[in-house]
Amino acid sequence: MKAPKKILSALGQGDSFFIATHINPDGDAIGSALALSMALEFQGKKTFVYSRDPIPLSYRFLPGYEKFRSRMTRNLGQNCTLVLLDCNSPERAALSAGGFRYSVVIDHHETEADFGDVRWIDSTAAATGIMVYRIIKTLGIPVTAAMASNLYTAVSVDTGTFRYSNTTAEVLRVGAELVTSGADPNHIADAIYETWGKKRFDLLIMTLNTLEIKNDLAITYISRDMFRKTGTQDEDTENFSNFPRMIDTVKVSALLRELDNGLWKASLRSKGAVNVAEIAEEFGGGGHKNAAGFRMRTDLKGLKTSLAKAYARISRR
Amino acid sequence: MKAPKKILSALGQGDSFFIATHINPDGDAIGSALALSMALEFQGKKTFVYSRDPIPLSYRFLPGYEKFRSRMTRNLGQNCTLVLLDCNSPERAALSAGGFRYSVVIDHHETEADFGDVRWIDSTAAATGIMVYRIIKTLGIPVTAAMASNLYTAVSVDTGTFRYSNTTAEVLRVGAELVTSGADPNHIADAIYETWGKKRFDLLIMTLNTLEIKNDLAITYISRDMFRKTGTQDEDTENFSNFPRMIDTVKVSALLRELDNGLWKASLRSKGAVNVAEIAEEFGGGGHKNAAGFRMRTDLKGLKTSLAKAYARISRR
Repeated sequence: MKAPKKILSALGQGDSFFIATHINPDGDAIGSALALSMALEFQGKKTFVYSRDPIPLSYRFLPGYEKFRSRMTRNLGQNCTLVLLDCNSPERAALSAGGFRYSVVIDHHETEADFGDVRWIDSTAAATGIMVYRIIKTLGIPVTAAMASNLYTAVSVDTGTFRYSNTTAEVLRVGAELVTSGADPNHIADAIYETWGKKRFDLLIMTLNTLEIKNDLAITYISRDMFRKTGTQDEDTENFSNFPRMIDTVKVSALLRELDNGLWKASLRSKGAVNVAEIAEEFGGGGHKNAAGFRMRTDLKGLKTSLAKAYARISRR
Repeated sequence: MKAPKKILSALGQGDSFFIATHINPDGDAIGSALALSMALEFQGKKTFVYSRDPIPLSYRFLPGYEKFRSRMTRNLGQNCTLVLLDCNSPERAALSAGGFRYSVVIDHHETEADFGDVRWIDSTAAATGIMVYRIIKTLGIPVTAAMASNLYTAVSVDTGTFRYSNTTAEVLRVGAELVTSGADPNHIADAIYETWGKKRFDLLIMTLNTLEIKNDLAITYISRDMFRKTGTQDEDTENFSNFPRMIDTVKVSALLRELDNGLWKASLRSKGAVNVAEIAEEFGGGGHKNAAGFRMRTDLKGLKTSLAKAYARISRR
């Protein structure tokens, strides 16, 4: 599938690009930003890659990760095209977009934001990495091993290495092409799944010990105290919500994290039968059918109860 | 890659085929046997599929699984070509091969056996399912959704859904083609990885709570009491030893299970840097470089201590 002309044209016209991705960047955010940066630099353009939050240790095997900066230089925007990747509003990237001469949005998340001079939002794409791959192929840029590793990682993370329902024939075909270009599936899977710090694993065990199953909804939580005891942070919880999904009867797994005293963040992951975006919307959040979330200032007990109620109602639809 | 002519010719000449696979059949054994049976039947041939052991519950979603029989009818072999799939000796299939008119071996395991009138053993193939796919494609047989689901499952299980080092570009390309033919990656991954009974998951959490790390050796254990409390058995512990491998510093994961009062079984899994067969041999057991085990009548504390000592000694070699 080709990338849209308006995007190619926007990328073609600029000379300097400020590629920004969302806070708490995951493999898709990091990998697609780096690959796009490499592709634009192959074309002789200047790029900056930006993430407000540091690149998690487990992604520091990615070629080029050290290019990420976490600050915006004053006046930089005046000469740059902003490219928002894997998110579609400047707020998600913790950026003020005022100063940029032009803005491009490339994302696969369903959206309500309306930001961007040019927007390409394809919620059917398994990963933003797939969209960046289409851009690179449509432009005829040779895919280097470094680009391939970044994009393969992006796709692996967002499809659970080809396990989620977004795994289409195209996704696997792109995976095959990226391996041909030099991505190493085993190396990448080990880096993603087998490089947990001990603290993170301790937090996982602690989290699994909180498991409660209400109807077919699995709820686990992490309090401030658990983060403190293990010396971990919210970014260490990536993938945690997948574990309770292993249980046959579980249809949705909800992971609740206390970000601040009384401020809770919920991640909902569905096996497919229940639309978790609908649940998240009830709490002022959003997302996809199978992956959604929200934030709420509340107490844990109340949150669990209202979540279980919303689940019961929506899963009956 | 094409299937060898001698195999196509052997399959072309027979009218009736007895397709047998190894004891304790896994997804590759079951999926490739069913797909080959369907392909040969498409050509108007008669097939029987045989597994001495019952098809595990988690594979009973596979189209055609009910075709498996666990007995050999007397004199059946006289008119049948035996096809050994995913194994290369009749013993591995718990079969006496004497009565068959002809025998074909299709396997990707390295072998010392020398059985079979025609043999195709390709240890570079990620799964026997890949070899069966090559046969089907070379013969020009249309890949039905039922064949695709069986083969995709075979490939998924033997590559850890595209995570192990046997994941080549061809494997991913075959995956893509099978999805185009009707395999559903998410449905298959769920069936393989997300059908744990709650009891089994409870046992996993309990097991992870016992984690101790000595040097780079992770030790977890399951006592009789833990099996009793969760209503589980030793067969429920498959894959448990993989979890502590997620920790970056861990080089070997040892899972200890109390089979009987004071009789312990140890499974050792290495990430590659330490030869666990050498450790197992010290305790009278054996295995491969990356997966080995032993049994011992002892007490838990003594077992942990002597295991840590043996690990320290052998990992220094």
